[in-house]
Amino acid sequence: MLTLYTATGTCALATHIALEEAGAAYDTVRLDFRQNDQRKPDFLAINPKGRVPALATEQGVLTETPALLIYVAQRFPAAQLAPLDDAFALAQVQAFNSYLCSTVHVAHAHRLRGHRWADDPAAIQAMKLKVPEAVADAFRLVENALQPGPWVMGERYTVCDAYLFTTARWLEGDGVDTGQFPRLMAHRQRMAERPAVARALAQSGE
Amino acid sequence: MLTLYTATGTCALATHIALEEAGAAYDTVRLDFRQNDQRKPDFLAINPKGRVPALATEQGVLTETPALLIYVAQRFPAAQLAPLDDAFALAQVQAFNSYLCSTVHVAHAHRLRGHRWADDPAAIQAMKLKVPEAVADAFRLVENALQPGPWVMGERYTVCDAYLFTTARWLEGDGVDTGQFPRLMAHRQRMAERPAVARALAQSGE
Repeated sequence: MLTLYTATGTCALATHIALEEAGAAYDTVRLDFRQNDQRKPDFLAINPKGRVPALATEQGVLTETPALLIYVAQRFPAAQLAPLDDAFALAQVQAFNSYLCSTVHVAHAHRLRGHRWADDPAAIQAMKLKVPEAVADAFRLVENALQPGPWVMGERYTVCDAYLFTTARWLEGDGVDTGQFPRLMAHRQRMAERPAVARALAQSGE
Repeated sequence: MLTLYTATGTCALATHIALEEAGAAYDTVRLDFRQNDQRKPDFLAINPKGRVPALATEQGVLTETPALLIYVAQRFPAAQLAPLDDAFALAQVQAFNSYLCSTVHVAHAHRLRGHRWADDPAAIQAMKLKVPEAVADAFRLVENALQPGPWVMGERYTVCDAYLFTTARWLEGDGVDTGQFPRLMAHRQRMAERPAVARALAQSGE
């Protein structure tokens, strides 16, 4: 049995959607970041990084969204959530996920997590100010990658779509004008209409 | 035929080492970041992100280190650079790579790339000041993960080792006291003794 540790508004939603798409049997444990649950000893014993997502499996705990997405795809191959046997296609999926993880998510993180990278409150404020621009810059490449669609990888729905949907939900909160991203917004709408996505959102309290 | 676009001192070294370990046939193109080669139209036509590594393959260009490392492992399976058929073990490899990419590398990037996340010169300077602490914090988790060794994944050498070696070479430049990381330093030494690593370093001009 799998247990997903998640929290509202975080990238854990991507793995949650993937588990739903896969038809997996799993439990969820929701952490309350306002209560700082992720820094409490109980959770640090599960994931010393103090972050979500974490996925407890029969073999141990796994972390990091790009890793979890491929894990779900590989563990539930019938759902065909990633082109596991095609090295080039899998690398495209992974490159997309890696970009979301290390460029898009990092740009977003400077809004609320600036203290990771500077101590001076003025510097933390300066990071916050640049978030709309840095996040929009990061998403511009994604907007271009959404041709021809309808999914990130074209005709085939993959874990990339779950991850993109998760990060694209942050746009308004990050102060980005979504009017410049028509394909991205259409993708978000397309995703919201999937039953698996609706179930994951409901279970996450989002 | 494969062509790796690389630059001295960058994370492209990880893919370079993996290609050498795999015994792959490939060319390299070295970009000069001091000349801003990565922002020139010729290279942007290859990789619109304006970053290295990029790997040109017969099917198109691939980017992002975690994606390239698994691509090399999958394309050259005889080298056994990743546990491709074991979902849990592969997820552990991927989680490690993802952490290096989105936490370790990002902490490091605040030394020279602060302009990505703030405009104010004082803020950029404040980020620089915190780099020794943020990078050391990020590596602390890696130091603990290096038990029992000798490799990141234990007895088995994987692409994680190439990636870790690459990022661990930045420690001194980032102002981190390496004395606090004896396992990491022993790993770096172990890696430097591998012929494939020596070849990749020589070809990168490092």
